[in-house]
Formats: sequence, structure tokens, C-alpha cells
Amino acid sequence: MENSEAKAFLLIIGNEILSGRTKDANTQFLGRKLGEIGIRVCESRILPDDEKKIIDTIRQNKDQFDYIFTTGGIGPTHDDITAKAVARALNIEFERNAEAEELLRNFYSPDDITEARLSMADMPKGATLMENPISKAPGFKIENVFVLPGIPKIVEGMFEGLRHHLAESSPFLSKTIVSPLPEGLIGGPLADIQAQYQQTEIGSYPFSKDGKMGVNIVIRSKNVENIKPVAIAIQNMIQRLEFP
Amino acid sequence: MENSEAKAFLLIIGNEILSGRTKDANTQFLGRKLGEIGIRVCESRILPDDEKKIIDTIRQNKDQFDYIFTTGGIGPTHDDITAKAVARALNIEFERNAEAEELLRNFYSPDDITEARLSMADMPKGATLMENPISKAPGFKIENVFVLPGIPKIVEGMFEGLRHHLAESSPFLSKTIVSPLPEGLIGGPLADIQAQYQQTEIGSYPFSKDGKMGVNIVIRSKNVENIKPVAIAIQNMIQRLEFP
Repeated sequence: MENSEAKAFLLIIGNEILSGRTKDANTQFLGRKLGEIGIRVCESRILPDDEKKIIDTIRQNKDQFDYIFTTGGIGPTHDDITAKAVARALNIEFERNAEAEELLRNFYSPDDITEARLSMADMPKGATLMENPISKAPGFKIENVFVLPGIPKIVEGMFEGLRHHLAESSPFLSKTIVSPLPEGLIGGPLADIQAQYQQTEIGSYPFSKDGKMGVNIVIRSKNVENIKPVAIAIQNMIQRLEFP
Repeated sequence: MENSEAKAFLLIIGNEILSGRTKDANTQFLGRKLGEIGIRVCESRILPDDEKKIIDTIRQNKDQFDYIFTTGGIGPTHDDITAKAVARALNIEFERNAEAEELLRNFYSPDDITEARLSMADMPKGATLMENPISKAPGFKIENVFVLPGIPKIVEGMFEGLRHHLAESSPFLSKTIVSPLPEGLIGGPLADIQAQYQQTEIGSYPFSKDGKMGVNIVIRSKNVENIKPVAIAIQNMIQRLEFP
């Protein structure tokens, strides 16, 4: 089990992200937090508020991945179509969830409990609620699909409460080696090292600092024993190039 | 032509984005800049450095969209696989581009022109170069696929130079109305307005400021005449709810 690797697919929903009005922050947060518990995010797909696209995407991917996480589109307005789309994708009845309704009725005063707000309790039948410690309206889990809100602060608040629904395994570990030499000089020998250690992921991320180009070389694996020899090989390679 | 709408698909390539190490900024930049020239970004897909996935995605989408933009994976290291994947997706020979090679040879001193750097001139046969005003190594266009680097500053620098390859049409216009009432109170009447004006996109984006919830309501259309009546209807609706 220790090195098993669960796979996740993210579905980020919202016209405002594709129009550039809002920058998606949920991919980064979920990628990092899921990686910490050994789950690899294999794809993140940003789609508009389009029911058919959401339904098709969930149907095409739900059996390919251990988990699907959606963010966005579960508020009280007309453009919040995710919950119903998920129900349709899974061919599950869409109905008012009694537990979610109670949460909302306890949170809002009777004068403020509009039909729009109550619609946030409409979910696929059999959904398990995901607690929202910030604004109460819950997310939910149905089969292997986790339906989360779009606002990053609420996604963050909800994550701790949903962790226990996920099969945790050993986290991805990473070691970053900073190369003072640019990618163009280390590219060849680095490719040789990657070819020698194919089981270990080596990423190369150039940066520019004070006008000089350097590279963050990131070694990533679930097993620290896989990281060590690669780190040593890379450090030696840089040293040979720097002090020939 | 004025209200025609070209459609774009973004393919954001990089393990570092899915692991949460790096936050994608290219979707927002391209979404905004393309919107300004009337091109709608319909989807943005973030994929790992995986040749097969890149090939499959380009093949499945290139005929569905007017433009595909890829970002990432065109540097000089082993994880830079985008250019070759694009060539394979389109069944085009992958070869050294003479013009790109010359650019690189003029930019680097003879001592610094490694094989890794020259590999940045390997492209699908017949590619048109996209000028890189920052670090020289060019992007390219082949058929309807624009292949851009991953570093946001370079994407930004490259964009002005590639605009003339795009069929510009009237830009998307938007008007934001700030509602001091939260989504739960305006959700019902706002849905009625959307139902009445189906050709005009209305987005609802909640915010929290000084502990009070409000909503940015964004009306979006290519035609200002479509925006006006919707804006008036929304302003009147908010006023009725605020001062009943």
C-alpha cells in the first residue's frame, strides 16, 4: 500500500475563470493538499457554467479516476448548476436534502431563508454532506465525486473535514536543487540522469533573479530512497559543469 | 461579422501546476486578452508532461475550436515535450527550424550554444515563429495551434506579436453592478431577469467585505444594447429589495 497512488481529476467550474475575471486558486490548493496525502492530481479541467459539458466530463472521467473534485457553481443563483449536473451525470434523483435544509434553516433567520438559499440544499439523493465552517451551505460527496464551492477560502475550510473520506497513502516527497547554471547548460546531462532514474520524476523550472537565469530542479517521489541518488547525481553534475 | 464569436481552447502543460508547486497564470491572461479581441475561451485543460495525453487532447479538440493555445513544455530540458507532441498530434514531420536555429545562434555565444538549447528550434515542419522579445527562443503556430512557453512574463511578451494571426471581432463588453444584498436575497429575482434576457450572460460573484456579504453581478455581451436593459432591470430589482 505504501507506494500506491490514488488519482484525482479536478473540474473547476465558472465562466469568470475562463473570461479572466478571476484567477483559479483551487487547482493549486487541491494539488498541494492532495499530494500531501499521496493522491496525485492528474488533470484539472476548467469549464464554463454549461450543464452538458459538466455532465459529459463527469461521465467520461469518473471511472478513470479514484476521485473527482468539482469546485464552483453550488451557490443560490441561476448560474449555480453544478449539483444538478452531477446528479444527472450519475443518473441519481435530485432532491432536497433534509439535513442540509436543517443546517440552512438554523443558520438563517426565518425572514432571510429565501427559496434561493434553500435551493443550496438540493442535491443528488444519498449525498453525504461536507461541512462548511465558514458560510454553512455544505458541499457534498456522492459516489467518488466531491462537490465543493468555488470560493477558495471555503474550499480550504472544507478540506480538513473531508480528508477522512479519502484513502491516504504516503505523501509525495520532493527535493529542490537550485542550479546557478541555466537550463540550456544543464539540459543535456539532466536528461541523461532522468533516463537513468526513470521511476523518479525530475522537473526543471527556470527562474530569473537579479538578471541571472537559474533553475529549480525538483525531484519528486513517494520514496525518499528514490530521491537520494538522483539528488546526488544532479549535484555532482552541476559541480562538474561549474568547476570543470 | 461584428457579433461573430471565435472559440479558443487552452492547453496548460506542466506537472508543477498539478502538484500545486506553481499557480497557473496563463489561463487568466489569455482569457482576458482573447476576450478583448472577441475570442471566447471555452475551456482550459491543465495536463501533466505526458505526450500521449497532449496528443489525444489536441486531436480531439482541434476541429472543435477556432484556436488552440498551448503553454509550457518548450524549453531545453527533458520534460519539454510539447513541440514534438504537437507535431505528432497533427501528423507533421518534426525537424529543426532553420529560422529558429539562426535566432538562437545569434543570441547565444558559440560556447553557450548547447545541443539542449538548439533543441528549442525543433518544431513541426512549416511552423510560423512567434517572436519572443524576452529570452529569444520562439513560440510557434502550426495550423490552428499556437505553441507558447509556460513562463507568464514571456507569454505576455509574445502575445502582442501573435495578435495579427487571430481573426479579431468585437470585444466582449461587461458591466458590473455591485449588490449590497447577498446572493441568497437576490438569487430568485436575478434568475427571473436571466430568464427574460437569455441572450445576455449574467454572472453572480459573491464577495465578503468588512464582514458583510455582497455580490458583483457581471453582465457580459458583445453588444452594448444587450447590456443596457439588463443593467436597468438589475438595478431596479436591487432597489426594490433594499427599499421595499
